Amino acid sequence: MVLHKNNKSVLKYMLGEKSICNLPSILKKRRISGAGGAIFILDEFFKNNKVFELGLEKSDQLIFVETSKKEPTTDYVNQLNDNIKNSGPSDPCAIVGIGGGSTLDIAKAISNLLTNGGRAEDYQGWDLVVNPGIFKVGVPTLSGSGSEATRTCVMTNPRNGLKLGMNSDHTVFDQVILDPALTATVPRDQYFWTGMDAYIHCIESLSGSHRNAIGDALSFQTLSLSKQVFYSENMQTLENREKLMVASYLGGNAIATSYVGMVHPFSAGLSVVLGTHHCVGNCIVMRAMEEFYPKEFEEFWKMVAVQNIKIPDNLCKNLSDEKFEQLYNSTIIHEKPLKNALGEDFKNILTPEKVREIFEKM
Amino acid sequence: MVLHKNNKSVLKYMLGEKSICNLPSILKKRRISGAGGAIFILDEFFKNNKVFELGLEKSDQLIFVETSKKEPTTDYVNQLNDNIKNSGPSDPCAIVGIGGGSTLDIAKAISNLLTNGGRAEDYQGWDLVVNPGIFKVGVPTLSGSGSEATRTCVMTNPRNGLKLGMNSDHTVFDQVILDPALTATVPRDQYFWTGMDAYIHCIESLSGSHRNAIGDALSFQTLSLSKQVFYSENMQTLENREKLMVASYLGGNAIATSYVGMVHPFSAGLSVVLGTHHCVGNCIVMRAMEEFYPKEFEEFWKMVAVQNIKIPDNLCKNLSDEKFEQLYNSTIIHEKPLKNALGEDFKNILTPEKVREIFEKM
Repeated sequence: MVLHKNNKSVLKYMLGEKSICNLPSILKKRRISGAGGAIFILDEFFKNNKVFELGLEKSDQLIFVETSKKEPTTDYVNQLNDNIKNSGPSDPCAIVGIGGGSTLDIAKAISNLLTNGGRAEDYQGWDLVVNPGIFKVGVPTLSGSGSEATRTCVMTNPRNGLKLGMNSDHTVFDQVILDPALTATVPRDQYFWTGMDAYIHCIESLSGSHRNAIGDALSFQTLSLSKQVFYSENMQTLENREKLMVASYLGGNAIATSYVGMVHPFSAGLSVVLGTHHCVGNCIVMRAMEEFYPKEFEEFWKMVAVQNIKIPDNLCKNLSDEKFEQLYNSTIIHEKPLKNALGEDFKNILTPEKVREIFEKM
Repeated sequence: MVLHKNNKSVLKYMLGEKSICNLPSILKKRRISGAGGAIFILDEFFKNNKVFELGLEKSDQLIFVETSKKEPTTDYVNQLNDNIKNSGPSDPCAIVGIGGGSTLDIAKAISNLLTNGGRAEDYQGWDLVVNPGIFKVGVPTLSGSGSEATRTCVMTNPRNGLKLGMNSDHTVFDQVILDPALTATVPRDQYFWTGMDAYIHCIESLSGSHRNAIGDALSFQTLSLSKQVFYSENMQTLENREKLMVASYLGGNAIATSYVGMVHPFSAGLSVVLGTHHCVGNCIVMRAMEEFYPKEFEEFWKMVAVQNIKIPDNLCKNLSDEKFEQLYNSTIIHEKPLKNALGEDFKNILTPEKVREIFEKM
């Protein structure tokens, strides 16, 4: 029996400055009698910054999510889901996520939970979601994570420390709006850290053993766009913001056909044990990647220098043995990407001592 | 009011050698009680060449289409559609197109016609298809046209000579299977001519005025893959066939966000007036494109030389004035691509004399 990955795409995407203006007309088609209002999951930034019109109707709800301090937890998703369920008898006509990767992931998770029942943690894993979610729209306001294109939404379960997504075709957005006007106000550091997520998952995929011709093609194009942006004098012109938005979308499509490698598991370790945000975490991990990705290591730090970006350091300098053990455990658990990078015997290469040595460089 | 193109994607795609083996299991999910069998629209080549298992069931039908002599006509599509309608009371559970661009286009047209009624010519134009078609699967066995990814299916209406597609979101395949094993037997000339379709529509799009960041990114990647294939010693290795298949798919996605330019309208002229096949027609038109695409002209003829491919010539040497008038009319009718290439006053540039001069180079 031959098995090939059947890749699900975002059904419709729109690109261009001010394309968010089309959101009300997209939602209008979903506002049929009997259905509830639309639920907007927005990054808290938009609470005090009205940069676009949502075309709100009476039954719609706005939910502002806090993403600056922590990444999504299953508890938080469950709580939002309960609030929506308790607010009315009908399922919403649409879930609209407007924000960075965390906000989009929360929107994806809620869309699935509303039609499948149960708790968020029940669906962490592969292909556990049974029913299609509520019609969902993704509007990234930060480029790089690729969440707008992928079939996962990552959450941490605070009870067992597991950081894992609902990997399912049902997690893919039905509509994506790529509007580079929305990334105009992103702070420089964050723009770089998050933008680099696309670059990093593509170098991981291209260095891995699970390559395929379409993932490769999309990855090469993502790297080309990322380098155009981060080697240029002003990485945040409209043209560059649009390029980075496309890089994020294509990079998300690329990684959905393949696997990440060394960087993401180590970054997940930092995230679970030290609470480091995913994207800055990836950049911190790059401090220790010369051995595994030598050419890309050099390229990455050149772009850091060109843009004069601060990547935090000395994160793991004075940690206890217990913390290092936790870091080891929450890194080594990511078997698929580590096998993709190092092969079946990755545990013989990544001994606890070696993992500690790697973290000590961060 | 800001308007942006809302691009519909193929919902699911699969890539890899022998991925066609997954077709029976994909169809199994559509074989629900009450629905009719699956209709397989196959290129006539497969009548005597059994290269894969279709997992046929009793109620399924095989239709072999003749594509070597002519391109799809509305009459032919209508006739196939009538035959399917007369063969049973239920709509088929799926339409599967297996072949080159013409075969895929016929499958797309029939899928739409079965659920929308009427005749093929009723839907030639933009967004005239009202209902979603029958679930449709595209399996290209020739790379380049991009039909597996686009929202159109081109047919010629023999009554008015109009060569035009059903441009509609409903025309997009629900599932595509990209299996490079299926292009192993394509003759060298045809492999080159058709493969060049992807290269040509991307150079047209990148030189036009309707560019966008995602169409550009996909076009650049398509050009890169095409050049890797056609500059290499053996353009038909498995690796190169897989690359060209990806180039075709990405090129189709690229052109769906943009417009073609000079080559396609002139090639359509050859097609309507002289019956030239679309892809070899494009290559013939390239004989006269130095003035419009100088860099790409040079690159194209270099690839022709590397692969030692024969591009027909002297096609328009001894044509009557009447034929040249017909050629002018069936070229100049393609306003959108010609505007994309030359601007609003394209008719002042492409006078009947100029058009004749261009055709005389072919």
